[in-house]
Order: sequence, then structure tokens, then C-alpha cells
Amino acid sequence: MHVLVTGAAGMIGRKLAERLGRDGTLCGAAITTLTLTDIVEPPVPADFSGSVRLVTADLADPGVAASLVSGRPEVVFHIAGVVSADAELNLDKGYRANLDGTRALLDAIRRIGDGWRPKVVFTSSCAVFGAPFPDAIGDDFHLTPLTSYGTQKAMCELLLADYSRRGFLDGVALRLPAVCVRPGPPNKAASGFFSAIIREPLAGRETILPVAETVLHTHASPRATVGFLIHAAGLSREVLGPRIAITMPGVCCTVGEQIEALRRAAGDAAVARIKRAPDPLVETIVAGWPHRFDAVRARALGFVAETTFDEIVRIHIEDDLGGRIPD
Amino acid sequence: MHVLVTGAAGMIGRKLAERLGRDGTLCGAAITTLTLTDIVEPPVPADFSGSVRLVTADLADPGVAASLVSGRPEVVFHIAGVVSADAELNLDKGYRANLDGTRALLDAIRRIGDGWRPKVVFTSSCAVFGAPFPDAIGDDFHLTPLTSYGTQKAMCELLLADYSRRGFLDGVALRLPAVCVRPGPPNKAASGFFSAIIREPLAGRETILPVAETVLHTHASPRATVGFLIHAAGLSREVLGPRIAITMPGVCCTVGEQIEALRRAAGDAAVARIKRAPDPLVETIVAGWPHRFDAVRARALGFVAETTFDEIVRIHIEDDLGGRIPD
Repeated sequence: MHVLVTGAAGMIGRKLAERLGRDGTLCGAAITTLTLTDIVEPPVPADFSGSVRLVTADLADPGVAASLVSGRPEVVFHIAGVVSADAELNLDKGYRANLDGTRALLDAIRRIGDGWRPKVVFTSSCAVFGAPFPDAIGDDFHLTPLTSYGTQKAMCELLLADYSRRGFLDGVALRLPAVCVRPGPPNKAASGFFSAIIREPLAGRETILPVAETVLHTHASPRATVGFLIHAAGLSREVLGPRIAITMPGVCCTVGEQIEALRRAAGDAAVARIKRAPDPLVETIVAGWPHRFDAVRARALGFVAETTFDEIVRIHIEDDLGGRIPD
Repeated sequence: MHVLVTGAAGMIGRKLAERLGRDGTLCGAAITTLTLTDIVEPPVPADFSGSVRLVTADLADPGVAASLVSGRPEVVFHIAGVVSADAELNLDKGYRANLDGTRALLDAIRRIGDGWRPKVVFTSSCAVFGAPFPDAIGDDFHLTPLTSYGTQKAMCELLLADYSRRGFLDGVALRLPAVCVRPGPPNKAASGFFSAIIREPLAGRETILPVAETVLHTHASPRATVGFLIHAAGLSREVLGPRIAITMPGVCCTVGEQIEALRRAAGDAAVARIKRAPDPLVETIVAGWPHRFDAVRARALGFVAETTFDEIVRIHIEDDLGGRIPD
């Protein structure tokens, strides 16, 4: 099996490629080739015995998408994209990367036109929803994004569904909750603080909390997120039906509850490293995001997330800190 | 006031331009200039005393949109587009006209960038919804188009909402029901038969009914539709809020009930001109369309439609047949 991963230099892309390399199989078939692409060179997964093709290119540039799909991968994980605050601050960049890049990829697949019909797993976002919300957002709540990022993700969901319906590909769009705890340096996502308030104190560094502790949000670990992607690759079009965009499950809790989980894992000294500094841009973006979901359909389809935020903290320590909190 | 109408050679565009010309005002201001554009030359409205600029061009071609908005119209009626069956049969054409054309227009407005913020009234469609449906579709039902046309309209709604939120323009998207009775020759819309079964028999011609008489659908006359557009131009951004896409009201009835209204207006001889010939493509497209809406929000915002299909037949006779059924 040949698998293509876009955004393979990003956090989720890297973790997915590592997992695919380690597993060596996907949907029960041996992975022979991994094509990994991003705008910067993606790392080669450590434990993979098949062949790896690295492509450093911009998906929205002419010819790039066609070259990427010329090897007819059976599964495409389309993760590439510009994150929320970046897309909000740089309108052209966001539409180019998130909308035009996706369209280029899907059109390149369509233009092969010889009956090849890959599985395309697309990372959408809960930012396709926008306030005002019901207490919990059901699977048939309408698309009302309040950010350009959410708009772009929603537009891509629609395009993916149309191309799936027409039989060019088998698409599935996963509306990811906040992926938490993100390892590595902070990125430009407006949701970055949800991770930073755990990651930075655990690493002995101070961090900024730009919103109130009462802010409620839904989280899934990077490990669970990679699990969603791999599970999605195995869902048949018959099981999915025409509604290919699925809200993923997660742990719904307040920022205050996140901080208490940090305290249980690492004590008061870690919690004391969180400094309050309200940021109106972040507050506005976050206020427009949904808090809680009834991910009924995802759970019925077999997607599994963590059940407590303590578990999410523990997974961060296991997967990103080598199993122990630094001294 | 300067008003721009795209798709001005189409049925709704022509009737809108005629109405604007006859009224001479919009939102209480005198119309001084009408810019009318389409891919074929639009007609000059008969009763307009202001200046008319006709532009025959493709909105998706480079530079066309920028030229159209260079005169900074206060109100833009964006009606141009490829209809449903055409967009289904010609994928590239549909995405180019319906998505790229709209994006070119909105980007051209955005790029002026000097604080000019026109009202943009966009004709979306009830085809943004797709089966399975509840009995009546509420204002917060999700977007699940089952046609490329519906997909394109939904994507444009999202883009229009994002650009409105960012303050480039004040958008409002009207999800039109079937516009019925369409005058003139049949077009490529899959919904064309809803009009043809009234218009053709009234004109003494035979016509084809490609679906069952039990098919339920929601209709508004061209006169009501033009009324929706003009009413929408007067809605402030404060009244609309962030949810700028609104399902329009209409008359919900079966094809059989339409035929009985024709019988009351024109007798059995007219009804006998309707021939049954099921068409699988049309049946499939129509089966994926919604039937009935709770247009609660539209009615609360003051949009007014007909209340019976007899009224729709009468309006066709008044507006398109000079007030009498031909011998």
C-alpha cells in the first residue's frame, strides 16, 4: 500500500508518519511506500522499513498536487494547512493554503480519471461551528464558522463531500477538537494556550493564559488524534454514507479543570508558572468556538478519545517527555 | 445610488432590472446608475431614466470583476451562475462560474480596500440542503448538499459570511425555493419541469413531467423572488447578525396540487397537455432536494411569498402573459 501524507512536517503529520512507520500496516495491508510532503522537509519516520519519498513543496503551486498523486496512493491523509490565528491575520495566505491547496489536491486526484479512487482523510476542525450554540452541538448542527480558518475548513468539507459523491475519491472529514497537549514550540493557532498551560509548566517554563479559567473546550491528545485518522482510513463509503464530515469525540472541560489536572500531575509549583494576561484577539476567536459536542455519530463509528484530562496530561508525559516530568 | 446586477440577462436578473428601473429607487434612495452584466448582453430596462452600463463578460475571467466594481456600487445583486443540471453535467464549468466567479467578485470588492462596503445580495438555493431531512427544515439545519450546484452555493454562502464578518462588504444570501412559473424557453435546471408543467400547457404546448405527482416542493413566483432581493438589500448588518444565509418562504405543495391549480385556471384541456415520462437523472436530483422549510427567520425579517399555488399561476398570467391565457 502507498500512503500520502500532506502537512507531514507538522505536529500531527509527524506523529502520524511515525505511527504508520511503526505499525508498518494500514487497514490490514502492508505499507510499501510513504510519500510525505510539506512546505518544509518532513522528517523520515524512524522505524519504517518501506520506501519513503519526501516532497518539499507548496500544494497550491501549479503541478505540485499532480506530481504528488501520480503514484496513485491508496490512502491520502490531507493534514496540510495554515492554523487559525495565522489564517485570521493573513487572509490571502489562509485561503491559498487551506482552500486552494485542498482544491488542487482533490482536482489532481479527479484528473487522473482512470477509476482510481483513493481514500482521502481530511483534518477539518470544530471551528466550522460558530456561536450562538446549543449546550451541546449535535451531528446535524449547521455550519456557522466565525473565523476564516473555520470558513476554509467548511468549504473544503463541502468540496470533499461533492467529489466523494461523484466517485472521484472516498473522502472523510474529521472535525478535530483542540489537539492537546501539543509538544514543541508554540504555533500561531489561537487555541495554542490550551496546550501551553500544560506543556510549558511541565518543562519548567512560565506561560501566558490569555482567557478566563471558565472557558470550556473539548480536547483530544495527539495520540488519540492520530488514532482518529487511522480509524477513518478504514471506514468504507457504505458505512459513512453521504455525510462524510464527522465531529470527533474528546474531553470537555474548563481551563480551570485543565489546571487542576496539571496540579495533580506536577504540583503547585507547576501551576504557579501560569501567568494571566487576557488577549482580546484570542478571547474573541475562542468565544466564537463551540465548547461541547454530542459526538454521537463518531462514537457509533468507533472513534475513541480520552475520557479525562488527567489521561491527556499522562499521554503528553509518555509520548513527548519520555515518560517523566523534567526536574 | 449605483446598483450592480450580475446575471442580468437571466430571468431573475432581467425582472429585477425591470423592477429597479420602474421603481427608480432602492432602499429609499434614487438609483442614478445601473450596471448590468452577464455573459450575453443584458437588455436595457424599459422605464429607467438613469444611466445604464452594460457589460458582457465572464465574471471569472481575470480583471472582469475588478472592472465591474470600480464604480463602487452601493448595492450588488449577485445572481450570475450556472444552473443545477448544467453544474451537475459540467463539473469544471459549474465550479468556475458558481464558485470562482463569486470569489472573483468578492475579492475584487475586498481589494478596493478603502472602506467602501457595499451591500451584496447573493442568490443561494435550497439545494444547499440534502436528504435525509426532517419533515420541515429549520433555520439551523446543517448544510448537506447532494449536488455540485448546491455545494457551490453553500461554499459561496460561507465565503460571503466570512467577508461580511471581516467588514469587506455586507452580505446576505437568500436560499431561494424553486422559482415558479419561469417564463421563456426551458433552461437546464433540474427543477425546470416545476414551471414547464404550468407554462407550456398555458401556452397551448405539450410538456413532459419527469417525476411522480407526489413530489413535494416549495415555490415562489419570480415577482416574489425579485421582492426578496429588494427586501434583502434593505436589511442592515445589525438586523442580520452573523448568520447571513436565510431560507426564503414559499408555497409548499405537490406536483399534483400544482396541476390542480392549473386546472382551476385553464381547465382540463390545459392539464391534458402534460405527458408523463420519468427521467432518472431528474428524479435523483429532485429526491435529494428538500421539500418543506420552516422559514421562520425569513418571515420574521419581513420576507413575503405567495400563500397558494393558484396565486403563483395568476402572477405568471399577469406578469408574463399580459394578463390573459392565450387562445
